[in-house]
Amino acid sequence: MKNILILGAGLSTNSLINYLLDHASEYGWHITVGDINEKAARRKVNGHPNGAAVIFDINDDMESWRTIAKADVVISMLPAFMHHLVANKCIDLRKPMLTASYATDELKALNEKAVKAGIPILMELGLDPGIDHMSAMKVINRIQNEGGKLTSFYSFTGGLVAPEYDNNPWNYKLTWNPRNVVMAGNGVSKFMRNGRYKYIPYHRLFDRTMTRKILNYGEFEVYTNRDSLKYREVYGLKDIPSMYRGTIRRPGFSKAWNVFVRLGLTEDTYILEDSENMTYRQFVNAFLKYEPQVPVEIKLQEYCRHAADPVVFEKLKWLGIFDDRKVGLKNATPAQILQKLLEEKWKMDPQDKDMIIMQHEFKYTIGNEDKMTVSAMAIKGKNQEETAMAMTVGFPLGIATKLLMLGKIKHKGVILPIHKDIYQPVLAELKTFGISFEEKEYMMG
Amino acid sequence: MKNILILGAGLSTNSLINYLLDHASEYGWHITVGDINEKAARRKVNGHPNGAAVIFDINDDMESWRTIAKADVVISMLPAFMHHLVANKCIDLRKPMLTASYATDELKALNEKAVKAGIPILMELGLDPGIDHMSAMKVINRIQNEGGKLTSFYSFTGGLVAPEYDNNPWNYKLTWNPRNVVMAGNGVSKFMRNGRYKYIPYHRLFDRTMTRKILNYGEFEVYTNRDSLKYREVYGLKDIPSMYRGTIRRPGFSKAWNVFVRLGLTEDTYILEDSENMTYRQFVNAFLKYEPQVPVEIKLQEYCRHAADPVVFEKLKWLGIFDDRKVGLKNATPAQILQKLLEEKWKMDPQDKDMIIMQHEFKYTIGNEDKMTVSAMAIKGKNQEETAMAMTVGFPLGIATKLLMLGKIKHKGVILPIHKDIYQPVLAELKTFGISFEEKEYMMG
Repeated sequence: MKNILILGAGLSTNSLINYLLDHASEYGWHITVGDINEKAARRKVNGHPNGAAVIFDINDDMESWRTIAKADVVISMLPAFMHHLVANKCIDLRKPMLTASYATDELKALNEKAVKAGIPILMELGLDPGIDHMSAMKVINRIQNEGGKLTSFYSFTGGLVAPEYDNNPWNYKLTWNPRNVVMAGNGVSKFMRNGRYKYIPYHRLFDRTMTRKILNYGEFEVYTNRDSLKYREVYGLKDIPSMYRGTIRRPGFSKAWNVFVRLGLTEDTYILEDSENMTYRQFVNAFLKYEPQVPVEIKLQEYCRHAADPVVFEKLKWLGIFDDRKVGLKNATPAQILQKLLEEKWKMDPQDKDMIIMQHEFKYTIGNEDKMTVSAMAIKGKNQEETAMAMTVGFPLGIATKLLMLGKIKHKGVILPIHKDIYQPVLAELKTFGISFEEKEYMMG
Repeated sequence: MKNILILGAGLSTNSLINYLLDHASEYGWHITVGDINEKAARRKVNGHPNGAAVIFDINDDMESWRTIAKADVVISMLPAFMHHLVANKCIDLRKPMLTASYATDELKALNEKAVKAGIPILMELGLDPGIDHMSAMKVINRIQNEGGKLTSFYSFTGGLVAPEYDNNPWNYKLTWNPRNVVMAGNGVSKFMRNGRYKYIPYHRLFDRTMTRKILNYGEFEVYTNRDSLKYREVYGLKDIPSMYRGTIRRPGFSKAWNVFVRLGLTEDTYILEDSENMTYRQFVNAFLKYEPQVPVEIKLQEYCRHAADPVVFEKLKWLGIFDDRKVGLKNATPAQILQKLLEEKWKMDPQDKDMIIMQHEFKYTIGNEDKMTVSAMAIKGKNQEETAMAMTVGFPLGIATKLLMLGKIKHKGVILPIHKDIYQPVLAELKTFGISFEEKEYMMG
């Protein structure tokens, strides 16, 4: 029996744990799920004969050492900032490790040590980062092998509510970490177009969207991700003139969200005075001029002309930002108050299903021709456990773990899934779960 | 002979050093100016029989200890972050200390130690903070002594070029730390009006100005300072319903500056790619949409509607932001590039004189009457050495040092000049230098 250790039993681990348990007897695996909350771990294992649950606390040095020592491979689903603690133990104990998180500079600095220990630390094996890399590299490598030269790469991803359950004016629900949604884009966003670097400050980010039809799912809009430039290096496209990454929402989302950004409701750097006794209406009013004889609704429309658009205003009103209802949060930042409201209003109902949408757009020249390839994927969740997010994060990790256990991944060190011997079998098996990319070729005018 | 040690020989120390040297033989003082650059210190002392220059490096623990040990009082004009190092030595050696800088939490934490050592650490003894506190407390105390109840306190300060030398379309020149001008207001600004807390995010700050006529100097505009709320505690006005502090500029400045804020040119959190080879025109273009067939000037006016105002556009053009001239700064942030340009264009010419303007507006009720008191001050620099900034920072410090040496300040611990026995004699002597407040009383409708 080979021992696989999964650290963390959060919501996004369902598909991963089920995938490994489903293949456990076939490959002779024993799956241990470790979490600081043993009950949560046990619930995930659900009495499977090849499974076990343990308490795992990365801050308990001795005990976490002992748990990792018993494993043949470790998958860390812990919060991202804990990965380097796990990685250091895996290196010392020579245990291969996998995560769905970004290879931060801190992690990358462990590359040499991992190579010396003779183990791979496979990072960015989820959805975004993860499936984005694999599906992009597949097309990039094919174009380059055919002698094509890439001139532009745009890539968009979004987690949304599936259209059948899309029943609010924002066409959006929280299918993922709410804090990340509130803080999205905070900072500067950088991309390249035709060799020109472009920068968008946060307060203009939601002004500058693009629209796209994707597959048969109708229209979407895209806003820019924080740093598109670093992907030039990831994909070996250092000299590509255009590089852009964005987040997908339904049309109209950004224009309404922009009102919150412009007002300052998404700021997280200071605490509001007496937030405890504030109503949502007073919260909004705190960012508007002092004009006690003018209703908050009117002041907002005068302050942000976007808010005067009836489609935008309807969204704002529906959220309850004008309600005389107490927030009830002590020492809260604006972002925390907004998040509390969104968690109520954008909550997924029990029957709701989520959807992941991803689209890559490659422009390239081959011979004298300008061509474009569009590669797109959409997948809906099955239920509240097997969400599209859990599947797209968990299956690539599960499949890579299998490949590793079967000796099919030979890389050592800190590795991304940009290598053909990783992405090809992972993408092939993802298809069997309905995660498949549809490619279209266009000749350009 | 009593020894006075002045640490730091920067531009703002001229009036302070001259004040103390001018009074040195009268009171039997010996003035030592210490700077990391001994030459700079010597230049300030200028061969005065009661003066001496020494090398002073706060990081040279032994030597700085020895220098402070010889003094009877220490005035720190070093960069603000160094004050606590000086303060700790002054406490250990039981030497009174004075500065023109904010009493940070780090400094305030030394209060008990200073009390035990039996010395005062007199902070915030410059212009702003400094003269603002003293001139405000004088009126506040008078109103309260008469039985008045303050309902509103607005206070504005600005450093500008004197009207006679005001010859550029911004009506502004750099009379003070250029970096502070570029970063002004970055973050959130907080104030209170009629019991309502108000917050302005940075990207809206320069939208929301007020205008004022001040003394005989014509019209000014005011934008909000970062944190007006903390002054409630400083002035003992915890329950005042309205509290606002702002910065004074000439009308039209904010609307044009706003274009830079909106574009993102004042951001200092990231480095621009290849900034070294960028022209100012390309710098601006990096924040605008990719539309190579549209000139930067037009794109800017489409992106920021304020920029389309001909008065604003004239200011932008005059600064040279559209010039095809290389920036020549390696690994620069947007704010650093903008600062470089401003340092060229907003430079004070050798004959130019600066001006400081300050206005306080107090509203209060007394009996059944609503009243208002406006207290305003303006002073112009004499020359490039005795600037209005150097005088308004240096004289209060110099006068307070004299009072201390004469035994007229009995306070111990970390002290602000909000006490009558400090502000009254300081304000009285400031008048002899032309720094005087003109007060007007109004009956309110």
